[in-house]
Amino acid sequence: MKKERIETREDYIQSLKELDHHVYYRGEPVPDVTEHPAIIPHINAAAVTYELAGNPVYRELMTATSHLTGREINRFTHIHQNIDDLMKKVRMLRLLSHQTGSCYQRCVGLDGINALYSVTYEIDQKHGTDYHKRFRSFLQEVQDRNVMVVGAMTDVKGDRSLAPSDQEDQDLYVHVVERRKDGIIIRGAKAHQTGAVNSHEILVMPTISLREKDRDFAVSAAVPADAPGVLMIFGRQTNDDRKMEGEIDIGNARFSLVGGEALLVFDDVFVPWDRVFMCGEYDFSGLLVERFATYHRQNYGACKGGLADVLIGACALATEHIGVARASHVRDKIAEMIHLAETVYACSVACSAQGHRTPSGAYYADPLLANACKHNITRVIYELGRLGHDLAGGLIATLPSEKDLRSPATGKYVEKYFKGIKDVPTEERIRVLRLIENMTGGTALAESMHGAGSPQAQRIMYLRLGNLEQKKAMARRLAGIGGEE
Amino acid sequence: MKKERIETREDYIQSLKELDHHVYYRGEPVPDVTEHPAIIPHINAAAVTYELAGNPVYRELMTATSHLTGREINRFTHIHQNIDDLMKKVRMLRLLSHQTGSCYQRCVGLDGINALYSVTYEIDQKHGTDYHKRFRSFLQEVQDRNVMVVGAMTDVKGDRSLAPSDQEDQDLYVHVVERRKDGIIIRGAKAHQTGAVNSHEILVMPTISLREKDRDFAVSAAVPADAPGVLMIFGRQTNDDRKMEGEIDIGNARFSLVGGEALLVFDDVFVPWDRVFMCGEYDFSGLLVERFATYHRQNYGACKGGLADVLIGACALATEHIGVARASHVRDKIAEMIHLAETVYACSVACSAQGHRTPSGAYYADPLLANACKHNITRVIYELGRLGHDLAGGLIATLPSEKDLRSPATGKYVEKYFKGIKDVPTEERIRVLRLIENMTGGTALAESMHGAGSPQAQRIMYLRLGNLEQKKAMARRLAGIGGEE
Amino acid sequence: MKKERIETREDYIQSLKELDHHVYYRGEPVPDVTEHPAIIPHINAAAVTYELAGNPVYRELMTATSHLTGREINRFTHIHQNIDDLMKKVRMLRLLSHQTGSCYQRCVGLDGINALYSVTYEIDQKHGTDYHKRFRSFLQEVQDRNVMVVGAMTDVKGDRSLAPSDQEDQDLYVHVVERRKDGIIIRGAKAHQTGAVNSHEILVMPTISLREKDRDFAVSAAVPADAPGVLMIFGRQTNDDRKMEGEIDIGNARFSLVGGEALLVFDDVFVPWDRVFMCGEYDFSGLLVERFATYHRQNYGACKGGLADVLIGACALATEHIGVARASHVRDKIAEMIHLAETVYACSVACSAQGHRTPSGAYYADPLLANACKHNITRVIYELGRLGHDLAGGLIATLPSEKDLRSPATGKYVEKYFKGIKDVPTEERIRVLRLIENMTGGTALAESMHGAGSPQAQRIMYLRLGNLEQKKAMARRLAGIGGEE
Amino acid sequence: MKKERIETREDYIQSLKELDHHVYYRGEPVPDVTEHPAIIPHINAAAVTYELAGNPVYRELMTATSHLTGREINRFTHIHQNIDDLMKKVRMLRLLSHQTGSCYQRCVGLDGINALYSVTYEIDQKHGTDYHKRFRSFLQEVQDRNVMVVGAMTDVKGDRSLAPSDQEDQDLYVHVVERRKDGIIIRGAKAHQTGAVNSHEILVMPTISLREKDRDFAVSAAVPADAPGVLMIFGRQTNDDRKMEGEIDIGNARFSLVGGEALLVFDDVFVPWDRVFMCGEYDFSGLLVERFATYHRQNYGACKGGLADVLIGACALATEHIGVARASHVRDKIAEMIHLAETVYACSVACSAQGHRTPSGAYYADPLLANACKHNITRVIYELGRLGHDLAGGLIATLPSEKDLRSPATGKYVEKYFKGIKDVPTEERIRVLRLIENMTGGTALAESMHGAGSPQAQRIMYLRLGNLEQKKAMARRLAGIGGEE
Repeated sequence: MKKERIETREDYIQSLKELDHHVYYRGEPVPDVTEHPAIIPHINAAAVTYELAGNPVYRELMTATSHLTGREINRFTHIHQNIDDLMKKVRMLRLLSHQTGSCYQRCVGLDGINALYSVTYEIDQKHGTDYHKRFRSFLQEVQDRNVMVVGAMTDVKGDRSLAPSDQEDQDLYVHVVERRKDGIIIRGAKAHQTGAVNSHEILVMPTISLREKDRDFAVSAAVPADAPGVLMIFGRQTNDDRKMEGEIDIGNARFSLVGGEALLVFDDVFVPWDRVFMCGEYDFSGLLVERFATYHRQNYGACKGGLADVLIGACALATEHIGVARASHVRDKIAEMIHLAETVYACSVACSAQGHRTPSGAYYADPLLANACKHNITRVIYELGRLGHDLAGGLIATLPSEKDLRSPATGKYVEKYFKGIKDVPTEERIRVLRLIENMTGGTALAESMHGAGSPQAQRIMYLRLGNLEQKKAMARRLAGIGGEE
Repeated sequence: MKKERIETREDYIQSLKELDHHVYYRGEPVPDVTEHPAIIPHINAAAVTYELAGNPVYRELMTATSHLTGREINRFTHIHQNIDDLMKKVRMLRLLSHQTGSCYQRCVGLDGINALYSVTYEIDQKHGTDYHKRFRSFLQEVQDRNVMVVGAMTDVKGDRSLAPSDQEDQDLYVHVVERRKDGIIIRGAKAHQTGAVNSHEILVMPTISLREKDRDFAVSAAVPADAPGVLMIFGRQTNDDRKMEGEIDIGNARFSLVGGEALLVFDDVFVPWDRVFMCGEYDFSGLLVERFATYHRQNYGACKGGLADVLIGACALATEHIGVARASHVRDKIAEMIHLAETVYACSVACSAQGHRTPSGAYYADPLLANACKHNITRVIYELGRLGHDLAGGLIATLPSEKDLRSPATGKYVEKYFKGIKDVPTEERIRVLRLIENMTGGTALAESMHGAGSPQAQRIMYLRLGNLEQKKAMARRLAGIGGEE
Repeated sequence: MKKERIETREDYIQSLKELDHHVYYRGEPVPDVTEHPAIIPHINAAAVTYELAGNPVYRELMTATSHLTGREINRFTHIHQNIDDLMKKVRMLRLLSHQTGSCYQRCVGLDGINALYSVTYEIDQKHGTDYHKRFRSFLQEVQDRNVMVVGAMTDVKGDRSLAPSDQEDQDLYVHVVERRKDGIIIRGAKAHQTGAVNSHEILVMPTISLREKDRDFAVSAAVPADAPGVLMIFGRQTNDDRKMEGEIDIGNARFSLVGGEALLVFDDVFVPWDRVFMCGEYDFSGLLVERFATYHRQNYGACKGGLADVLIGACALATEHIGVARASHVRDKIAEMIHLAETVYACSVACSAQGHRTPSGAYYADPLLANACKHNITRVIYELGRLGHDLAGGLIATLPSEKDLRSPATGKYVEKYFKGIKDVPTEERIRVLRLIENMTGGTALAESMHGAGSPQAQRIMYLRLGNLEQKKAMARRLAGIGGEE
Repeated sequence: MKKERIETREDYIQSLKELDHHVYYRGEPVPDVTEHPAIIPHINAAAVTYELAGNPVYRELMTATSHLTGREINRFTHIHQNIDDLMKKVRMLRLLSHQTGSCYQRCVGLDGINALYSVTYEIDQKHGTDYHKRFRSFLQEVQDRNVMVVGAMTDVKGDRSLAPSDQEDQDLYVHVVERRKDGIIIRGAKAHQTGAVNSHEILVMPTISLREKDRDFAVSAAVPADAPGVLMIFGRQTNDDRKMEGEIDIGNARFSLVGGEALLVFDDVFVPWDRVFMCGEYDFSGLLVERFATYHRQNYGACKGGLADVLIGACALATEHIGVARASHVRDKIAEMIHLAETVYACSVACSAQGHRTPSGAYYADPLLANACKHNITRVIYELGRLGHDLAGGLIATLPSEKDLRSPATGKYVEKYFKGIKDVPTEERIRVLRLIENMTGGTALAESMHGAGSPQAQRIMYLRLGNLEQKKAMARRLAGIGGEE
């Protein structure tokens, strides 16, 4: 990366070209991610986080003032200094969802730096270590260079009924295989790494609360995406071949589909000590996971709420295109979709508005309400998909291809027979239907289910954070038990 | 009312004794509401709004500084001056729900004064009237005396397919029957008037958006509860007889059940001009309804979320009492209940956090998110009731009465056969089950459905506030329609 | 019981008058259940099972030919001889729900005799006992006299985490306390006994699958309702006081509310051997519970589906009464209620149509589909209640009492202000609203949740009956695993 | 088609090779459908309907005795003669779903012939035509040759707010453009034609209830798939490219995905009179649509219930593969999936068991319950998909491709890092996850929504068939209105 600071879309793409990282897709190496059609749309989406920050209209949401340097930075590299920052974060996400209709990937890094910022501070308080200082130094570099960071938490996990050190193959959780004078060697792999193939830095974090015997798995570190030993395998998505084919059938040609995840392999990767932020402090692994999860769950109502807005708009168009937009049942389903979108957005706003300061000074979203946010997503997105399919009609499952539309043999039939109301060209109708298909297919749904933690993870948090004892005391008092009142 | 200012529970009860209002219940007059067992629990619940305001622990939430006088006032008489006031309102409501497990009734008055405060200001701006000044004067009296105000909006409505003036009997909507020099005469009735029989003042407001031909129905005014011509018929509630019988079977002996509604009849009631705040300005009736509805919908996630907390506690106890609290399906249902409670609370928080200033200076909750709040309540409370019934077991539908427990003939059998785990007395178990029954019965559910507007009212707002055009534009752009991108 | 055979409503009532059983309500003995207003409506509902059997219009559904005697008998005393009998059973139940809008109580006895008929046969096959012969003799008596039988299964259970014999008080499960030459002595209590106070015979059955150490709890026997030592405490229901007050507020004056359950105490009751059908064969207790549960779960879609039909009709009327029946959202909610009613009815039909013959010759409903039937009820009834409340409006929670309607002081206001459309008298409107209130209140809902087994009981059955191994094999084959295909 | 009768899979494939029909895919002609990888899996699935009929194990379900000839025929060409036939139909469908995990396509033809059989009879009764005789002759040919028939009902429809004859382009509904001595010429197109590209005959039917002005659109006829003027454009499906690539990523390599729909264009196709079964009798178009819809809605609980069984099995495997199959929340979700599968199957069984005879002698499923069946599918399949995603984990959205598994560069990492429990090869785990992905993606869901009619179509039927007047009468009687009792 030659340029000091990435400011524009062009800077960003250039910076990726200069990265010497090892990316594979369909069993083949990808020499330049910025030129591979399977990856370009994801790069386009991430690039919007740079573009909008440079646009005065969006500057208030997209940028912030660094508490480290006082300089204006991209909000995706900012440590939340107050509740207003937490609120702006979620408004920024809804905006970006509106702009891209997809996943812009930088929130995992943002959440990673915020989680580590506060946790390294607390580790140092207890253990007398100097992780926080190291981390601030790394953070300043991130802010100054405005790099994209992937938050690498989810291990591949193997047999879930066994602890990391009890796995037959211990590499199924990333761990320290050697401690050297100048640094550590780590091995393992992280799954589902959103944005990994177009990020500059990887922020490794443990994925579960660990016990003493698993202390080697309690490791956090920053690794350049092109560090020796790092290798990425880009995963498949629903209809990913369509990205290689044309424009219409993808649905959202420019930004494609949520996700763009990779398997991130650490094949004995060396990390110098100044980029190590946890190494053996297993007693803080649970806290780090919880912090990261809360920040990440905070996002979902804004991110998916914003995508829902796009989907609602597309459904409104699709029904207009066939002359049924005023039918009462159509109006009612649109109203229901708005209800669902605003409900999940409300959860993102609420956990932000109820945030609080951590000892490090970083602000933290309310974890109970952040859980409610993500947990609703695991249901609401499926219901939105269902309503979207209802309104779009069966064509989203049976439409001919763009090639049929363009073919001399079949084009005239496609044009003629998929025409809706008089003034709307058939191609417009098809484009909108393909967008709906894109936003309600398998990957889009599954990402909502498992991103930021699977549903059961949230249910465990409800029981932990729900203060059941206080609730029981209130019930006892009102039932007239225990002499009170 | 002899006392200048109502400060304590005792003041409040004394003030009600001094009221000369006409209340009927079961076809009989109620000479003193403070001594009628059907009404006492509702008075107890409203009294908590006075008690806690005098308790230093709760003072920050329960009181505010009047923007009119600078004096400390009960928050239930306060005009919200900023977002913090909106947030404190919802936190206050959740607290009161925890304290009472019931309905404390004063939010309708609070929402009424806030709605009229801003709307009278805007009427004056347009029509050159002086309603706002009159209203501030009334408001100061409310704040200084700390009286309880019932927000009287919902007309009885007759045939819903007809406008007010098209009804066979025009009295089915409250309206002005005579304009006199010194004031107006109004006639009609308001239904479902929560807290009416133990309030001091009635704040009349129109119930729908009106057209010119219905200008006589565009009337807002403050009427003392004991004004000549005012008459109240206290309605039935689920299991209301049990209030007259003993203690256990009511479930929540001190505060009973949500609601306590009355039909409020205006049989040609005179109102002097200085207490008239709208008289014919039909063009503002819709705005007033919307303002009131938003403020009122803002409450439901906090109010019902707080009640849900009590219900969750009761269910946790009920399952402990029979030794199943650790069963995985029980834990899972408790987690689900917490999820639902926090989701609705999140909506109350969110619409408050996203509030904004009206021209009058009063702060207003976000109407779209406030709708989401109430609309969720119309579903979530039924699901909470369902889960509550699941956890409580069939006994809530078949338990013998308190008299059976106390009877020499049957008491020993009830004691013996309804015993759960060893260390919990049978009576405790029964008390908790009766509390669950109380909180999940007919009235409790139906109030959640229709209070602050029936579901369809919210769906109409979704379509009005949901900005469908913007959503369609976003979808078009991402689908590659219209030359953009 | 002097009359040889109960044929008419009058016979039935007379037979109850002649019963010398010990019933308590609100701590007081009830000398004649046929004259106590709390019990009369339940008797009225059960009486319909006699009345309709004597009506030629309903004879095909309401009667059957005894396989024991060839005589025509009431279908409620019939052993199902083929699938047509199973189908007629569910059609009979839907019919009776239409006629009563309530619970006619005789299905528990019907399900008890069918379960014991087949299980006693199988016990004898294994253990060489002669229970089946004894049971046929008892059954013939039931058929000939046409008595009402209560199926007494649910023990009070105490601490659910302990086996019967591990309870501190072993009486929390009914058990044999003495074996004598001429019979046995049993002690304990059965909870939630629907129809107990107006039945002639009690059919005791164990409530769970038992192990060897609990063999004394494996007891089944027929006990006359007025046997010495039997005592019943009639439970409370939602709004049960209203039965003592007048007509309108009950909602369904003639048949009142589902349920009418009692605690049934066996205080050392002697049973002669010829009425003992299981005594120690713990290895068959699980089977008996499963058989009874299946027959009982078979009913719910027909019984509650029929009640849903009445509720739908009432909601259609309530919306007509205020002029909104043609509104699209109202039509849509009515359509949804029909959908739910037909879905649960479909489950009753399906498990009947898929029934099969047991070794005894008695036909048995499909247990997996019968579970689906009941499990849907635990959700659908709440959703129907919710929709019912939505359509009925808030009045069901705030209506004044019948006494207010009749009072000279308030009647005119009630008449005037609760008027809907022109041609419908106010009282009609109120009656319909009270019916809806009656059918959607606490008891009505909770009974749907727990009758025939709580939800978790069904989920356990799903895992037991769902044939997961076969399903996995199909998935493996289609995924191309294991060499096949 | 040279062979007299198609009996085996090989016969079927040979018969398709001999068809001279015009199929296009991605803008290119498909000269031989049996050799095109996009179509082969669909042919495989349809072939199972031939294979199993020849297997003695399945003969009872898969074959029937023709009422026309007394010969044994494939059940997919049979006219239901009694309720047992209706029941066997749904059991056959569940069996085929188990065998294919996909869509075997022949039910549309089966439902088409049954609908036309009874409707042509009734047209003749009223209009004195001889359509039924013609149809029996066509039917005998279908039975004897055992051909596959596509039921072509759904027109492309254009602007839904306009009647067929009011469309700008009248071809948007198939219609008669010329009546000749020897036959008719039809023009238009049918959308979503399942199995069209591998069927032998097309059975054209109108898609909506028509009025007199639209009589030219009231046309039903049998058209050979290779008749001059017939042209088919095969639509896209979710991940359809994967069929061209390898084996694993398709999920179900042999049978692929539900659907395989085509746009079926009639470009002035001649039909001789003996293959015309309706021509202008617009008054029977609604009945024909309703008959076909009922038969088709009858299927969905069996078809999708069977697919759900496969999905449940796959999810059970996927959770075993990572060691969590015994976790209580996993067990609970599996139980829920079984509940949903059995609920929808129950609806298929019920509408069959409640079937009745039409005047023609053909048996007809209960239309109200058949609607309940399909309407549940439009919800349940999405919920099953949601639960499937929950249990499968995020990998279904991020898994690398089969090529990555096979690649020397990446294969070892995929093998190593996607390993679950010890004894299960990584490839097995991946295969199961791909099967789940296949069964829960976009096309699979959308087909459940719209096949056999979109949700609103069912809701209209509820209001038409729900007998609201009877329901109101029951409610009135129980509310004590109208002197009855």
